Amino acid sequence: MTYWSLNEADIDRIAIGVGILGTGGGGSPYLQMLMAKAVLRQGKSIRMIRPADLPDDANIIGLGGIGAPTVSIEKMEEGEEGVRVLRAIEAHTGRRVDAVLGDEIGGGNGIYPMITAARLGLPVVDADGMGRAFPEVQMTSFFVYGQASQPAALSDAEGNTLIITQAKTPEMLERLMRTATVAMGCTACMTTAPMTGAFVRQFGIAHTTSQAWKLGDAVIRARSAKHDPVAAILRESGGKLLMQGKVTDIARRIAGGFVRGALTVAGLGDDAGRVLTIDIQNEYLVATEGDRRLVMVPDLICIVDSETGRPIGTEEQRFGLRVAVIGIPCAPLLRKPEALAVMGPRAFGYDFDFVAFGTSVAAEPVAAYAEAKHNLPHRETCHEPS
Amino acid sequence: MTYWSLNEADIDRIAIGVGILGTGGGGSPYLQMLMAKAVLRQGKSIRMIRPADLPDDANIIGLGGIGAPTVSIEKMEEGEEGVRVLRAIEAHTGRRVDAVLGDEIGGGNGIYPMITAARLGLPVVDADGMGRAFPEVQMTSFFVYGQASQPAALSDAEGNTLIITQAKTPEMLERLMRTATVAMGCTACMTTAPMTGAFVRQFGIAHTTSQAWKLGDAVIRARSAKHDPVAAILRESGGKLLMQGKVTDIARRIAGGFVRGALTVAGLGDDAGRVLTIDIQNEYLVATEGDRRLVMVPDLICIVDSETGRPIGTEEQRFGLRVAVIGIPCAPLLRKPEALAVMGPRAFGYDFDFVAFGTSVAAEPVAAYAEAKHNLPHRETCHEPS
Repeated sequence: MTYWSLNEADIDRIAIGVGILGTGGGGSPYLQMLMAKAVLRQGKSIRMIRPADLPDDANIIGLGGIGAPTVSIEKMEEGEEGVRVLRAIEAHTGRRVDAVLGDEIGGGNGIYPMITAARLGLPVVDADGMGRAFPEVQMTSFFVYGQASQPAALSDAEGNTLIITQAKTPEMLERLMRTATVAMGCTACMTTAPMTGAFVRQFGIAHTTSQAWKLGDAVIRARSAKHDPVAAILRESGGKLLMQGKVTDIARRIAGGFVRGALTVAGLGDDAGRVLTIDIQNEYLVATEGDRRLVMVPDLICIVDSETGRPIGTEEQRFGLRVAVIGIPCAPLLRKPEALAVMGPRAFGYDFDFVAFGTSVAAEPVAAYAEAKHNLPHRETCHEPS
Repeated sequence: MTYWSLNEADIDRIAIGVGILGTGGGGSPYLQMLMAKAVLRQGKSIRMIRPADLPDDANIIGLGGIGAPTVSIEKMEEGEEGVRVLRAIEAHTGRRVDAVLGDEIGGGNGIYPMITAARLGLPVVDADGMGRAFPEVQMTSFFVYGQASQPAALSDAEGNTLIITQAKTPEMLERLMRTATVAMGCTACMTTAPMTGAFVRQFGIAHTTSQAWKLGDAVIRARSAKHDPVAAILRESGGKLLMQGKVTDIARRIAGGFVRGALTVAGLGDDAGRVLTIDIQNEYLVATEGDRRLVMVPDLICIVDSETGRPIGTEEQRFGLRVAVIGIPCAPLLRKPEALAVMGPRAFGYDFDFVAFGTSVAAEPVAAYAEAKHNLPHRETCHEPS
């Protein structure tokens, strides 16, 4: 297997990129960035592997945080949760894990598996099951295409740990995971059933860590060159600017283990007079202007700081923030009917069908990534991405 | 090991007795009675063993239903839940279970383990961890005296199953179990950590199946002889009649996976003019008359039909029922300070200390039980108990 390693400058880039792909959720990239740098400083390696390089029978699990982002930014991990759930699954199945990935690339969960993997000397697959973040466990391409709903494991910062040995449906798995997470204080680490390398290659959303890296790199380079970071995000993501404006209202509550609510953004400058409303369930779900729905799940709604391009999570939103609201087409796999049934508007309780925003394209790996690494210093501007 | 077997007439007696000891909760004895008779009719044996006859290193688990009785009388078991949780614990620990018991003798849970045991050919220990029923998982003498809070397992009628591999405290185990039970639809089968024979002998409440049998037998014999079944219960239990009256109000709701509420009974006959109020959390917790608390947890408050002595569960209460409210002293073990900390009034959120009701005495085994069996026909009156 061919690996490449990530350094702190990569983590900076990825932290920005997963924030953008997080569409407001997926947990705080900032905390995960700090934890990833901490393990690197302990001399551990974060090794990445392309899905194409996975052996067919590799034993792979997804790892990530589950809960309400408003809680997880204050109630932090203890750090060994990922190790505990991985070991729990290994003990239950009697088989060692060969590699990990994030079920969702969006938000802190795009970095989360790297930390556990570095501790255990395991590689991380450059792929996920969403190409973004979603609030519910079953909302991955893996579950859409037949990942088993058991075993799955959950552990909190206190060490409380459980294994779900049988869940009749992925939705029941979500329900069991969610209620246990609430019992654990609304934040925990989860893993779902092991998958083979062949399965991940076929049904994962490939190269999403690369995509996050490239998005973050574009932002960092724009900042450094005094260019517009928002324009850089649009170029790199294939997204479109929906509006620039000011947050004028944020309603946010924790209900059933999720953050739910809505955000209102009033246009500024060229967009003066316009008003966008964005529904929230951990992530930004649907952006509406008047009676027009501009972007809806599974397409991505990303909100970034107008000046710096810094992605803003649902838990960080507050009155007065100057933001750019961006729409980005989701991965092509998520627009298939079987995926829309699980991640489309109706899966979130809306009574309308999915209408695509823009053209969906697959994420590309960072070409010659491994080679480029050797010349990558810990400064922001000198790395030439593909 | 010396066993004795139960037949259908025994199950009839035990079903009445566990209803009395259930203090309103512990699940419906009626449904469990039917299921126990069904396994007997399939030719399986319900074999009992005295705690004194347990080998020191016997591997024993407690089995029972968890949830809200108002739900479990309508959403019935599928029947294999007990087998699933037992097998889950065996697989997790790598050790076969030698015998089962009920964590609570009260209500249907006093019969529950018999059904799984009969299916699997395992004996049932004549002991439990409460000598009654309690609403919460940690409220057993086993947990008071050091039973591990993990592993524990849970399974519902759909087959959804989970194992708690680490719970930092018995209270956290309760919380994880309870929320998962709610996710499963408010009723499930649970088992807690395996215990040794020596541990059960030392910290179990011994002979409570015998006690239930004797209570039920007393009621059946009184009915048959046209004597007062309530008087028979008082004689057999060492309890006292608090009041005879009519149910005039019942407030009952499902909250957090429990049935909570309060019951009002207005006195009739000699008790005319008196009013008792009884608080409910799955079980009857505290009986109050004006500003006087007559009986409180862990002592038993039992409500039975005035005419027939039939125990009435919290979920069966309704306006107009003619009832006798009985107080019964709990097992001596439960009155120790360490037990009161877990099962006393303050553990239920009350701001007062336990005041004992009557004299607490240990349950006695049914003497010469096994021998008596051979003469026990399937009628109600001809068995001479000890």
